Amino acid sequence: MKKKLGPRPALYPLPATLVGATVGGKPNYLTVAHVGILDLRTVSLGMNKAHHTNSGIKENGTFSVNIPPERLVRETDYCGLVSGTKADKARLFESFYGELETAPMIMECPLNLECRLVQTVDMPNHDIFIGEVVQVYCDEECLEGDSIDFLKVQPLLFAMGSPGKMATSSGYYSLGARLAPAWNIGKELMK
Amino acid sequence: MKKKLGPRPALYPLPATLVGATVGGKPNYLTVAHVGILDLRTVSLGMNKAHHTNSGIKENGTFSVNIPPERLVRETDYCGLVSGTKADKARLFESFYGELETAPMIMECPLNLECRLVQTVDMPNHDIFIGEVVQVYCDEECLEGDSIDFLKVQPLLFAMGSPGKMATSSGYYSLGARLAPAWNIGKELMK
Repeated sequence: MKKKLGPRPALYPLPATLVGATVGGKPNYLTVAHVGILDLRTVSLGMNKAHHTNSGIKENGTFSVNIPPERLVRETDYCGLVSGTKADKARLFESFYGELETAPMIMECPLNLECRLVQTVDMPNHDIFIGEVVQVYCDEECLEGDSIDFLKVQPLLFAMGSPGKMATSSGYYSLGARLAPAWNIGKELMK
Repeated sequence: MKKKLGPRPALYPLPATLVGATVGGKPNYLTVAHVGILDLRTVSLGMNKAHHTNSGIKENGTFSVNIPPERLVRETDYCGLVSGTKADKARLFESFYGELETAPMIMECPLNLECRLVQTVDMPNHDIFIGEVVQVYCDEECLEGDSIDFLKVQPLLFAMGSPGKMATSSGYYSLGARLAPAWNIGKELMK
């Protein structure tokens, strides 16, 4: 039996990311799981306007998306609990910079996307930041040639069971086993 | 050591979804993993303009996002391999309809999002469909109260290791274990 749950963003799990920006001249990181891929060069971030980080992205027109590994689950959660106005969250990590110069990235995260802001969509409570990926950095031990092995990245996945009860129904998950290659296993049904 | 991989949409894994639309008066389903959450009422789909499904979404202004479970991995892959111009993909599933009437949904998928198209962003090769979620349907056995238990949904996660070598580096994964609640475990670092 299907039950109607009303409107909610049930499109989970999504990767829990740490979004980096320069805010007030300093690196800052915010946990963002409402992310997406738009096309092969473009990603989106849905960020509540109350966040400190939004002003830095707008000011510099740059940001980073860092994929924390499972072992950084405490740090990842912390960066969503505490505002950059109250604490220096960048002290938890070693920051590095790429060609855009104002998009701080986290060395301890195995995968980092350096992005240029191309558009901001103004929603009632959220800024939707649309970014062009200008460079991707990956730890060599998570690569096979130039292909990223996500089982080695060990990303943290985020799901929210019910938007009204965040603390009890929301959590971080690990990536499970590889089940099948894509553009392949479905051929069995083409016969 | 970090290796530079060049621009690519490395923000994986994302849920492999089956996007439903009425095309030419008939239900059709397409596999789409380049999805995202924009805000608590809004989701995005990044769909190559070559797809048959795009015209149906534009014509009716409605679509659905269906979350297939692991056991539908063959069907999910098939719906990304075969065009709706060549095959009746809806024959694989039992379709049902909600209040929008033109957004077919898949009964065999435990979680279904019924969406109204609110904006289409025109990218060079992709249509980005931005949809307002008007209703969510979930199998009762995947719920605890009105909270969705994603471990019971058993979603298929998609990751592409390298955009140039789709067949060999891309795959479907299962959702792994729940590691920690959100907005909670990070409090340990606040002391």
